[in-house]
Amino acid sequence: MSNDNNLMEKIVSLCKRRGFIFPSSEIYGGINGFWDYGPYGSRMKRAIEALWWHEMVETRDNVEGLDSTIICHPQVWKASGHLDQFSDLMTDCRDCKNRFRVDQMEDPTTCPNCGSKNMTEPREFNLMMKTFVGPVFDDEHTAYLRAETCQPIFVDFHSVRIAARQKLPFGIAQVGKAFRNEINPRNFTFRSREFTQMEMEFFCDDAEGMEWFEYWKTQRVNFYKNKLGFTEDCYRIYEHEKLAHYAKAAIDIEVQFPFGWGELEGIHHRGTWDLSRHSEFSGEDLQYMDHDNGRKVMPTVIETSVGLDRMFLAILSHAYDEDTAATAKEGMEEDVRVVLHLPALVAPVQVAVLPLSKKLSESAGNLYADLNRHFRCEFDVTGSIGKRYRRQDEIGTPYCVTLDFDTENDKAVTVRERDSMAQERIGIDNLRNYLEDAIGI
Amino acid sequence: MSNDNNLMEKIVSLCKRRGFIFPSSEIYGGINGFWDYGPYGSRMKRAIEALWWHEMVETRDNVEGLDSTIICHPQVWKASGHLDQFSDLMTDCRDCKNRFRVDQMEDPTTCPNCGSKNMTEPREFNLMMKTFVGPVFDDEHTAYLRAETCQPIFVDFHSVRIAARQKLPFGIAQVGKAFRNEINPRNFTFRSREFTQMEMEFFCDDAEGMEWFEYWKTQRVNFYKNKLGFTEDCYRIYEHEKLAHYAKAAIDIEVQFPFGWGELEGIHHRGTWDLSRHSEFSGEDLQYMDHDNGRKVMPTVIETSVGLDRMFLAILSHAYDEDTAATAKEGMEEDVRVVLHLPALVAPVQVAVLPLSKKLSESAGNLYADLNRHFRCEFDVTGSIGKRYRRQDEIGTPYCVTLDFDTENDKAVTVRERDSMAQERIGIDNLRNYLEDAIGI
Repeated sequence: MSNDNNLMEKIVSLCKRRGFIFPSSEIYGGINGFWDYGPYGSRMKRAIEALWWHEMVETRDNVEGLDSTIICHPQVWKASGHLDQFSDLMTDCRDCKNRFRVDQMEDPTTCPNCGSKNMTEPREFNLMMKTFVGPVFDDEHTAYLRAETCQPIFVDFHSVRIAARQKLPFGIAQVGKAFRNEINPRNFTFRSREFTQMEMEFFCDDAEGMEWFEYWKTQRVNFYKNKLGFTEDCYRIYEHEKLAHYAKAAIDIEVQFPFGWGELEGIHHRGTWDLSRHSEFSGEDLQYMDHDNGRKVMPTVIETSVGLDRMFLAILSHAYDEDTAATAKEGMEEDVRVVLHLPALVAPVQVAVLPLSKKLSESAGNLYADLNRHFRCEFDVTGSIGKRYRRQDEIGTPYCVTLDFDTENDKAVTVRERDSMAQERIGIDNLRNYLEDAIGI
Repeated sequence: MSNDNNLMEKIVSLCKRRGFIFPSSEIYGGINGFWDYGPYGSRMKRAIEALWWHEMVETRDNVEGLDSTIICHPQVWKASGHLDQFSDLMTDCRDCKNRFRVDQMEDPTTCPNCGSKNMTEPREFNLMMKTFVGPVFDDEHTAYLRAETCQPIFVDFHSVRIAARQKLPFGIAQVGKAFRNEINPRNFTFRSREFTQMEMEFFCDDAEGMEWFEYWKTQRVNFYKNKLGFTEDCYRIYEHEKLAHYAKAAIDIEVQFPFGWGELEGIHHRGTWDLSRHSEFSGEDLQYMDHDNGRKVMPTVIETSVGLDRMFLAILSHAYDEDTAATAKEGMEEDVRVVLHLPALVAPVQVAVLPLSKKLSESAGNLYADLNRHFRCEFDVTGSIGKRYRRQDEIGTPYCVTLDFDTENDKAVTVRERDSMAQERIGIDNLRNYLEDAIGI
């Protein structure tokens, strides 16, 4: 990661300038804790999601996918403990009517806004966002936006297992929005009020829990190393010392964000807690009948849980670079190039097609249309070739394909690699294979 | 579409049995108007979304993607008119305390529940779901779950245009959840309270509005014909006679659902209404400066808007079939096979790999792993080959690849096509190309 105190500022600015991420409802002054993903941002977000889904669901016969609703039956959150315990301690100022988190006040008896001493007794403030379903706005019709994507997985455990003919051990995964009414959203998209989670719950016999916990820990670390190119120095494993009473083990994969180390993914051994609670509250027995040995067991759960927005921000943070030596090589006047060293699998543009001259637009356009069926591509014919390389560097495009006046004769193009800036002549017939190998598809 | 009065019941039952769709929070008795997509359902939903996104964004240089938040600044819904006008007329029974939609009552002065005549004056009930953002639950902190995905597109128009360096005409598209507090959710996933929309707003000079309206109408009809295989008899164009005061033209693409004709997609010429309103309410001038002629114009909007859940249900409705002649051919005892004639591009499983014997599991497993990098695949070794074909037919798998004891010698497999049940011997070297062509990738 670039060693720069202003790194976050630079990332936020690049995100806005190049259409990765900007504040939601910006023309209305924004809404604190909500962020929109623009053209390149939405491409990259989709690519990260697809990569995770492919890795966790599509390549595994023992993990099934799910896409559940954001609003569930309110009892789900009673059973999960969120209704009673998912809260911050707050105090109100009786004079200026503002509300504050007690753990963030220097002195909980003095209002940080107006200085009044007239504060209410601290009380719990629930972080779930509530709404009303049906025609009447009362307690009976209150429902909640899910605070995490895993609870519907537990609720649907039986339905999924039976329809998919799965036996223990197996997992269920889903990607989707979750909401938390954070009192103090901060650090760009790291702590926001609306975010996307990618969670997988793995159900197994309790006796095998620790083995599977270790297995998933290794799998997830390897994902960051092999698919996203995270080096040893940019992540660390944090082992929880204090565990929830039901949990048997818990670690976080932490990475260095511009503001310091932060949690990226949690891998938690949750014991039989989740299915036991939903059995108790729903009256539906969620035990698993093992027909091989005639035993009924309450499955143990190993969870892998990661925020998509955090993964996005972590990738950006480690990809951002200002490269002072490189530009001279390509004959540019600027002495600094901004470059995102994004993993090719998640770059918003994987291949840019750049005809050297507008006269080559037609044949370049055909090549672009063909490549665009297999890769995320962009076509750019505006400005000098050096300027176009810079634009692609800044959005992290790993491969630029340049057509020139020789192309018609040798049926070949020049492929320029972003990080080394090396150029190679590749036959058009072989281009798809070459790029698939280079990108790692 | 199958000519069967019980078609909806059969579809709902298949969806539950094979893990396409089932009620949200089912172990808690469900929650009316909310549906979860299971293993095959979530695969197919993702595939439909990817197909739409590819068609509308990835293959078009003049359409940009966006992924905005579900919760926006509340003024967005003031400007759009939803806060004031997006409502149903309701009346309450003072005796039994139930609430009813006036337009669905036989006699608005009599309670359909208890028969009381003691009804309140009808009043407007807003269909947006509300929540609270921040620490206090009052009017100032009220926000809404978006009722449609298009409004954030208008709000972000300038940011997207500038970052993406687009000129008129161009479009912005997004896919995402929307919420409506329907009083009477019905017809399975056709009218639910939480659903996924896929919308594209195309911005152009007002003088070219009708031309683009016709263009998008043709494009969208072609999508259904060419990508989803809808035949002339299964859709129709409904031209709106009553238009909103700002609209210049509006059509719906309707399809036949099991309960009758229903709206699938709307294509609307919205004039300059949307950007004018957001300019007025935000104080931000959303006009477009045409630097070629020095003119400032308020862009006109052509919208294409479709519900992903409805597209899913439409596809299922037209795909469902009970085939009485076919089974004898494959030596099965049942006289009826249930088959989903799903378009190969959206089928949850595109290729099933089925070794004829368990002894072939290893080589079949290797072939499966290889194919699974490029197609949505499933591996099944359980039961007779005829039974396995039936299972794949029922979930709509277009191609079954069977390995037999000759495979080792001739390096070839048998590919069985779902609809014709025809079998063809294909060399393994050529299999990927063969399947790409057959599926239409």
